[in-house]
Amino acid sequence: MLPYTLVIQHAAQVLTLAGGPTDRPLAGPHLNNWHIIENGYVACQGDKIAAVGPMAELDHTLITAGTRLLDATGRVVMPGLVECHTHLVFGGNRAHEFERKLRGESYLDILASGGGILSTVRATRAASEEELMENALHHLECFRRYGITTLEAKSGYGLDRDTELRLVRVARAAGRQQPVRVVPTFLGAHVVPPEFKEAGPRAYVDFILREVLSDLKGEAAFVDIFCEEGAFPLNVARYFLGQAHKMGFGLKIHAEQLHDMGGCEMAAELGATSVDHCDYLTPAAAARIAQQTDGRTVAVLLPLVPLFLRQEKYAPGREFIENGLPVALSTDFNPGSCPSKNLWLALSVACLKMGFTPKEAVAAATLNAAWAIGHAADCGSLAPGKRADVLVLDVGSVAEIPYWLGENPVRDVVIGGESV
Amino acid sequence: MLPYTLVIQHAAQVLTLAGGPTDRPLAGPHLNNWHIIENGYVACQGDKIAAVGPMAELDHTLITAGTRLLDATGRVVMPGLVECHTHLVFGGNRAHEFERKLRGESYLDILASGGGILSTVRATRAASEEELMENALHHLECFRRYGITTLEAKSGYGLDRDTELRLVRVARAAGRQQPVRVVPTFLGAHVVPPEFKEAGPRAYVDFILREVLSDLKGEAAFVDIFCEEGAFPLNVARYFLGQAHKMGFGLKIHAEQLHDMGGCEMAAELGATSVDHCDYLTPAAAARIAQQTDGRTVAVLLPLVPLFLRQEKYAPGREFIENGLPVALSTDFNPGSCPSKNLWLALSVACLKMGFTPKEAVAAATLNAAWAIGHAADCGSLAPGKRADVLVLDVGSVAEIPYWLGENPVRDVVIGGESV
Ligand SMILES: [Zn+2]
Ligand SMILES: [Zn+2]
Repeated sequence: MLPYTLVIQHAAQVLTLAGGPTDRPLAGPHLNNWHIIENGYVACQGDKIAAVGPMAELDHTLITAGTRLLDATGRVVMPGLVECHTHLVFGGNRAHEFERKLRGESYLDILASGGGILSTVRATRAASEEELMENALHHLECFRRYGITTLEAKSGYGLDRDTELRLVRVARAAGRQQPVRVVPTFLGAHVVPPEFKEAGPRAYVDFILREVLSDLKGEAAFVDIFCEEGAFPLNVARYFLGQAHKMGFGLKIHAEQLHDMGGCEMAAELGATSVDHCDYLTPAAAARIAQQTDGRTVAVLLPLVPLFLRQEKYAPGREFIENGLPVALSTDFNPGSCPSKNLWLALSVACLKMGFTPKEAVAAATLNAAWAIGHAADCGSLAPGKRADVLVLDVGSVAEIPYWLGENPVRDVVIGGESV
Repeated sequence: MLPYTLVIQHAAQVLTLAGGPTDRPLAGPHLNNWHIIENGYVACQGDKIAAVGPMAELDHTLITAGTRLLDATGRVVMPGLVECHTHLVFGGNRAHEFERKLRGESYLDILASGGGILSTVRATRAASEEELMENALHHLECFRRYGITTLEAKSGYGLDRDTELRLVRVARAAGRQQPVRVVPTFLGAHVVPPEFKEAGPRAYVDFILREVLSDLKGEAAFVDIFCEEGAFPLNVARYFLGQAHKMGFGLKIHAEQLHDMGGCEMAAELGATSVDHCDYLTPAAAARIAQQTDGRTVAVLLPLVPLFLRQEKYAPGREFIENGLPVALSTDFNPGSCPSKNLWLALSVACLKMGFTPKEAVAAATLNAAWAIGHAADCGSLAPGKRADVLVLDVGSVAEIPYWLGENPVRDVVIGGESV
């Protein structure tokens, strides 16, 4: 056998995420019952994890002069975080609009004066590819410092053919220019652009299906749509996802964020890989989704969004878990409803507001997040053969992860076997 | 005139905090109307700020070969944060208890099994001075990375003469061993220790007054007391603060955190420098305090505490500001009710939950926080003659500070003219 290239050793706890079924996301009690190894190690060969276990079982014959040793005494070692829902690439920011909201201006006042999502669309269309890249790389560097090693990035601030394709291209290129893996998703159906205001949502998704999706083959594995009042109604979302599915795309949906429109169940019926937001999804509907999909569709919960929007209507995560629906956690990083890259804060808020346990929160931002973007085969847990994406944290137990509220516990980040 | 030793130049915005009255904390409209200089500089001579202004007015004759230049193009430059309410020094942590709470165990169950504040008292009494120092230095380093340059540290987890004095000593020594200035406060009257369970609160504060405070002269400028059900009743708090005042100590109080007991008004009448928590303080009482103290007593608001305690009863900060009460913001960093050192998150939550504007939030964590710990003469604003505690942020405008939720915007930290 080849020698180890990296051994992270003497960890107080190794959070393996192993122990549940391996052919589907963790759900129900599995979300909390995965294995922790006390006084453990993680060994890598090149860019892959080679072995994980208690120190007593470390094979010292595979440690040679070329093996790098990383001491994790007193610390937690865990898989790199998987951030499964971001709007990474956009122009400008909406800090000024945030300030206006705090001063009491209504959403409609701001919209009437050209604010809201369409202001980001204008800024994004006006930005050069270089500017978009520079911003994306800046945000990716911050994500990396939080220990995010794989990140999904949606388009959706272009809303025309060229800009949407550019956003996907920038996301992919940004993924090649730094170590965090970027998984692009096409969200051309974010809202209806001004150019289709008259023609309407159905005409716009027909335009996407006809003129954009064929150029996305091999560029983005998933398409996504925002099913909400003011965005796309249920019947248009069903039509769009059904057609995209026939074209071979994986499916995602933004649904039940502000109203219960039935978007999550509809998308799950079509075989969606994830249904995202779910603040208004009922526990009963969650149980039906879990049953219908045989526990394969992941509900991606975004607890920082209600906090930032001052809405305080959180997805009933505890009930989802009890009803067998697999759940993941993400920031929803975007300039309008959640300008946060601090996924650890999302874990804490999920504990405080949605009733997650610390272990459930960790599973939701690693292995289940990997399932939510179709990458569970290569990341999200410390399993031999997976990419060696490993974090060493400045805390001594899994319970401390959501406990140190708002802080970044990351000490070392390893991606593909390399410290970054 | 002496040459500049450090010039931070080309800042997109210099947040001076200047423009309000200089003899008392900022209140009412002053909290939002302090001066921002666009395209500005901050010049230092040794450990002091020498000049602040627009780039056009920078005196280039004072820039010599020995002057260090720091470029802040596109960035915000502001005073170092002042963290005016922490419980820095303690043994252990309460992550396990947090996990039990999330699983639905009640506060009383946890208390009955030896949890709560007294579990931290046991851990603190059992810790060696070296362990306490190591923990304090670890936390101070994190605070420093968040741009905190002056920090108040309360005792209160000893509750006996020797341990309380040790906690003050460790806080002072920690202040000398690294660059963040530490301002100790004596909170021996945190709760009644087990040894005084029979004798009661009055007997315990008599013990403190008789046997501890005389040894604190020159060691701690302030005494503090927790006025709350289960801690100290109003009459005992009044007696204690009155006596301590006669001994020459500045006064602080933890009050109106969980109930309206009248503690803030009582302490303000005695001339308290700050009244802290105030979640249950009414806007009418806030107006009376502002009037009675001529705007000199600062209300220190701690927005992360209700968030972490899942209580969602926040101090009505907007109404306090409108009623003329000076307000400051802090984390309340402690192992039980707020294990967070992310003061920036407290600013965001103050905007979202208490209705602060971004400028009000910044003033509350700099100049008004300095007033709250008696250090407005030497920190909290970018005024010539003050200690050169300066931050360069990775954002371009003050509105972005609370906008990027949960993130740490700090790029460079300068304390006493030195990059740290
Ligand atoms: Zn989204
Ligand atoms: Zn406190």
